[in-house]
Amino acid sequence: MWCIEIEKIVIKITGRIFDDDRGINVLTDISKLVLEKIKTGSRFILVAGGGRRAREYIELGRKLKLSEGVLDVVGIEVSRVNALILATLLGSEAYLPIPRSIDEFMKAWTSGKIVIVGGMQPGQSTNAVAAVVAELVNADLLVNATDVGGVYDSNPKLNPQAKLLKEIDVRTLEEIISSRMLAGYYELFDKVALNIIARSRIPLIFLNAYDVENIRKAIEGGDFIGTRVIYR
Amino acid sequence: MWCIEIEKIVIKITGRIFDDDRGINVLTDISKLVLEKIKTGSRFILVAGGGRRAREYIELGRKLKLSEGVLDVVGIEVSRVNALILATLLGSEAYLPIPRSIDEFMKAWTSGKIVIVGGMQPGQSTNAVAAVVAELVNADLLVNATDVGGVYDSNPKLNPQAKLLKEIDVRTLEEIISSRMLAGYYELFDKVALNIIARSRIPLIFLNAYDVENIRKAIEGGDFIGTRVIYR
Amino acid sequence: MWCIEIEKIVIKITGRIFDDDRGINVLTDISKLVLEKIKTGSRFILVAGGGRRAREYIELGRKLKLSEGVLDVVGIEVSRVNALILATLLGSEAYLPIPRSIDEFMKAWTSGKIVIVGGMQPGQSTNAVAAVVAELVNADLLVNATDVGGVYDSNPKLNPQAKLLKEIDVRTLEEIISSRMLAGYYELFDKVALNIIARSRIPLIFLNAYDVENIRKAIEGGDFIGTRVIYR
Amino acid sequence: MWCIEIEKIVIKITGRIFDDDRGINVLTDISKLVLEKIKTGSRFILVAGGGRRAREYIELGRKLKLSEGVLDVVGIEVSRVNALILATLLGSEAYLPIPRSIDEFMKAWTSGKIVIVGGMQPGQSTNAVAAVVAELVNADLLVNATDVGGVYDSNPKLNPQAKLLKEIDVRTLEEIISSRMLAGYYELFDKVALNIIARSRIPLIFLNAYDVENIRKAIEGGDFIGTRVIYR
Amino acid sequence: MWCIEIEKIVIKITGRIFDDDRGINVLTDISKLVLEKIKTGSRFILVAGGGRRAREYIELGRKLKLSEGVLDVVGIEVSRVNALILATLLGSEAYLPIPRSIDEFMKAWTSGKIVIVGGMQPGQSTNAVAAVVAELVNADLLVNATDVGGVYDSNPKLNPQAKLLKEIDVRTLEEIISSRMLAGYYELFDKVALNIIARSRIPLIFLNAYDVENIRKAIEGGDFIGTRVIYR
Amino acid sequence: MWCIEIEKIVIKITGRIFDDDRGINVLTDISKLVLEKIKTGSRFILVAGGGRRAREYIELGRKLKLSEGVLDVVGIEVSRVNALILATLLGSEAYLPIPRSIDEFMKAWTSGKIVIVGGMQPGQSTNAVAAVVAELVNADLLVNATDVGGVYDSNPKLNPQAKLLKEIDVRTLEEIISSRMLAGYYELFDKVALNIIARSRIPLIFLNAYDVENIRKAIEGGDFIGTRVIYR
Repeated sequence: MWCIEIEKIVIKITGRIFDDDRGINVLTDISKLVLEKIKTGSRFILVAGGGRRAREYIELGRKLKLSEGVLDVVGIEVSRVNALILATLLGSEAYLPIPRSIDEFMKAWTSGKIVIVGGMQPGQSTNAVAAVVAELVNADLLVNATDVGGVYDSNPKLNPQAKLLKEIDVRTLEEIISSRMLAGYYELFDKVALNIIARSRIPLIFLNAYDVENIRKAIEGGDFIGTRVIYR
Repeated sequence: MWCIEIEKIVIKITGRIFDDDRGINVLTDISKLVLEKIKTGSRFILVAGGGRRAREYIELGRKLKLSEGVLDVVGIEVSRVNALILATLLGSEAYLPIPRSIDEFMKAWTSGKIVIVGGMQPGQSTNAVAAVVAELVNADLLVNATDVGGVYDSNPKLNPQAKLLKEIDVRTLEEIISSRMLAGYYELFDKVALNIIARSRIPLIFLNAYDVENIRKAIEGGDFIGTRVIYR
Repeated sequence: MWCIEIEKIVIKITGRIFDDDRGINVLTDISKLVLEKIKTGSRFILVAGGGRRAREYIELGRKLKLSEGVLDVVGIEVSRVNALILATLLGSEAYLPIPRSIDEFMKAWTSGKIVIVGGMQPGQSTNAVAAVVAELVNADLLVNATDVGGVYDSNPKLNPQAKLLKEIDVRTLEEIISSRMLAGYYELFDKVALNIIARSRIPLIFLNAYDVENIRKAIEGGDFIGTRVIYR
Repeated sequence: MWCIEIEKIVIKITGRIFDDDRGINVLTDISKLVLEKIKTGSRFILVAGGGRRAREYIELGRKLKLSEGVLDVVGIEVSRVNALILATLLGSEAYLPIPRSIDEFMKAWTSGKIVIVGGMQPGQSTNAVAAVVAELVNADLLVNATDVGGVYDSNPKLNPQAKLLKEIDVRTLEEIISSRMLAGYYELFDKVALNIIARSRIPLIFLNAYDVENIRKAIEGGDFIGTRVIYR
Repeated sequence: MWCIEIEKIVIKITGRIFDDDRGINVLTDISKLVLEKIKTGSRFILVAGGGRRAREYIELGRKLKLSEGVLDVVGIEVSRVNALILATLLGSEAYLPIPRSIDEFMKAWTSGKIVIVGGMQPGQSTNAVAAVVAELVNADLLVNATDVGGVYDSNPKLNPQAKLLKEIDVRTLEEIISSRMLAGYYELFDKVALNIIARSRIPLIFLNAYDVENIRKAIEGGDFIGTRVIYR
Repeated sequence: MWCIEIEKIVIKITGRIFDDDRGINVLTDISKLVLEKIKTGSRFILVAGGGRRAREYIELGRKLKLSEGVLDVVGIEVSRVNALILATLLGSEAYLPIPRSIDEFMKAWTSGKIVIVGGMQPGQSTNAVAAVVAELVNADLLVNATDVGGVYDSNPKLNPQAKLLKEIDVRTLEEIISSRMLAGYYELFDKVALNIIARSRIPLIFLNAYDVENIRKAIEGGDFIGTRVIYR
């Protein structure tokens, strides 16, 4: 098991957390968890998704006939507002302002603070950002906290019988990731992200963002509900 | 009259324009107007307010118990997303990325492009930003495009009999501006803004953002519906 | 009393300190005081005013017929040179370079160092800067170190009988602050600053910059000579 | 045909051009071609690959046991040196310094100058950069100038009988792009790039970088030797 | 003669110009001259020295026991305030903000605007900055406008009989440049500057800053009072 | 002796170290030495030279007829890639990204991290950079690690009988430093560097970069093989 001495942890948090009151307590609890964990020497990178407001802005932009690339930029800016909210919750332990490029991310990381980012570049999801930064810092764990709770054998939003997989091989994961990419709409995990985690064999797990106690278990190396990616 | 040779124009656009479908055509029409006017040598600075999404984010932040200063920062970020939308509508004539400080604004202004900004600093509204940049570039006109259409003798949202003033003395304006300042909630025009326009006697008019033909009349020096500020 | 556990302290230092030899020892003593206090866990933000050289430059600019907004920018640059002098006195404990915007200030603050700033934006004094940053970091105390020693019941430079007030209500303070704003000439405290400290109820005291032992008393929560602002 | 009014052109130039004396004249000729074309109103973005020196540095880094993400960063820096060489060849028409992020790219693009970039982010090739910027500016043509001359029905370096395809469907192209991604080693075109050009249907052609007259034909909409990507 | 088609001109202006009222008209006249000349296609870089206020600040710093390197930084900041004054006099034709590094200078230069700089790095004078930027842009002329009027056969401030040299060989110039370098005190021209102008054979003349008509003659290639540097 | 309490150490490392496999172990050993020393409170600045790849790029640039100033810029960029390699070897203790100006260097230095830089400005070698930063931070020791091992009484590459000097007076050193400066070709130590170390009397030693144990002796204040500069 890789659970001993986990030190550098990346958590990708779905943008939906910022959508409504359901997320308030979750955000507070995640902040508390992270602040607690850094006391024992762990370092954290949090990656915030865009959520409903990103989609609303992208919709507005589409009505204004903006191009796909620009719509992505708009979505990225919204994800950075989410990142800012998260950063201010973490107080003086968080790096500010929110890094807007890899250069700025590296500067932020060397500061020793918790680094919170949103999107970075059109054509890729915040999942790809999470994978890029996880590889750069040689992360011990990448937690993908979504609103579905892991990888299922079929779409859990359509099929109530869908079964959560405890483990999935990285190649199988690749097969089920669709190639469809529209601004603001990315699958569970995108291909750039996948290539990166595969080449550097970064420990990756998918779980539900709304169950903070479960996130704690995952980063402490305990039993958690969700899906672990396996490299052979 | 000051209407001859108007060349440098600042338009402060209420954030409400970005709130719903009502604003789509207005944004498109303002963009067209500005793109038409720069062909004749005029230069423009557009200042975007925060609107509904800024208020929503500030509300979210308040539930998360963030401080007033931080809530302002969040509102500022949202106004910058609005500014970005506006900038991309203007295409290659707009300066990008959105300036985040006076230094960046000056760099943007010297580029010769249309400059679009949102907020800049906690404790002041986007109205103050509009006044600061108008003074810095020695603007010939500052248009404050709101959702009420000008300065009334009483609150038009409460009193249907409220009468729109065609002119108002800068000192009278100062008296009716309340001192109340809470994050994301600023009056018609704030005191910083007022002090600046007063000391440099910047021509200032208030009018309705939703009537683009009226905005055209105002910047062409014609008869418009709204309120003009008078310096004695 | 708010004197227990004062941790985040903002000191606005009048630019006059940098004007002549009278200020040399004061600057050295303030540096020593701050370096001593950070050892016990306190964090400091120092805000340097512009002083005589700012006024000289502004006068030069006025002869060159520069606009009010630009004159403010010139004054701001001079205040940053003062800030730089102060920063180098503090050695490796000070953040460099001097932050030029709110973004840069936030980055500086998260570094854990002493942050020293000058002005930031035309149309507002360094007092406003002090209030903005005090609110942003949720400061426990804002010390306004001037060359008059506090708030008097009349102008102490004109009336030798003027009496120093030990306390003043924030609303009374507001009334006595004049609305006059010319580049490089700002009253004791300006309105933006006042609105900010009022909305966030930031503990604020006015005292004499030349008596460093008195500043020490103030930040240690002891009896000091000067004026405390009261919020009801 | 899309050849009428081609205005915004992105040329991705293989890093091999910078490897040895063979490339000297090519670089000079490409510069002359671009400088000639901008006079007729076309705008250009040039994307420089890393080439031999990038590979040498990555090899050095691998011997020093640096991680894959860091090796990519090193390769990116070398591609930026190549971009700098290209930029200085173009003289005062080129934007400097070389943009290091999407923010900086947008600023460069709005300047009206020729923009030259290298890599931008670990985990993606300079082909992906070319696709991202082509989409952002709504490019009329993306020319991928390689050292093989187009897409073949088999590997031309292994099979001398390999036949150059005049056209290839975007889906077929996707199939032949391998998923293998190691630092400094990317296939003909990567998946991120492909997804972007597919969603925005950006006209894309592959041709040989060493035949500048052929590049001229391609950007003038004439008959050229190489492969055109077809969207159905 | 090199006087035909002079296009890129660097003028180093002594900081003394900013010291007192004697310089007011000179600054205005130099601005007018430059604004007139850019209409005919010439491009200008102005380099402002530090002058009296730089020396005052350095003296203050020395009393505060700051190190030589830091004193240089302080002097550089003051020269940048001078550069800012000059830039605002030139209005919208000047690049802002004042470039603080070679990277920023290059960005400024590619903007097509007049670029105004002050110092850049400790250990070198603003003369060295002038030489560095003159070489970078391949300048056609470097005018060193001092308060003595050229190179004399002995010190004109001590010896009233000192004779102004019309020409001086670059090697002779090297010999008479003293090696003494203290913060804020640099000779006529420093060694870095000399090495650069020598290796790139940049046309260099020394003349009096207070005679703007003479500066005009020099940049128009006419007869002027001052010293021309000769390369053999 | 100055060997007690050495705390701030600058090591200039010849770019040749990055040229071939001979340097691999040296780089690793220097990194280990620095990482070991910072644990006892020492602070380090490492300055990387350009080496063979810088010369190759400069040669390429010269074939492309780029100017001397631009060739220096290219060499500087390559030295920064070397600095990046070194920085990533030092892991989380190194500041990233590599500072590109004095402003950025100061920010990096105040972070408390090991700072690694390459070149900074055309017309000066990385030796000058080392001297400038050594003076700015008031360094206790500047180690110039070359590939010849110190200062000899004649050129050791031509004369096998050349004798290594144990000490050299700063004035004698000045005399033997040639004035020749071509892009990418700088002598042992340049004049700017010399003026700076002379005015601030910075302890300076020259030694061989390939003998890391000898470097250790030098920074520990013990007997080392190399040349010490003497100030009288």
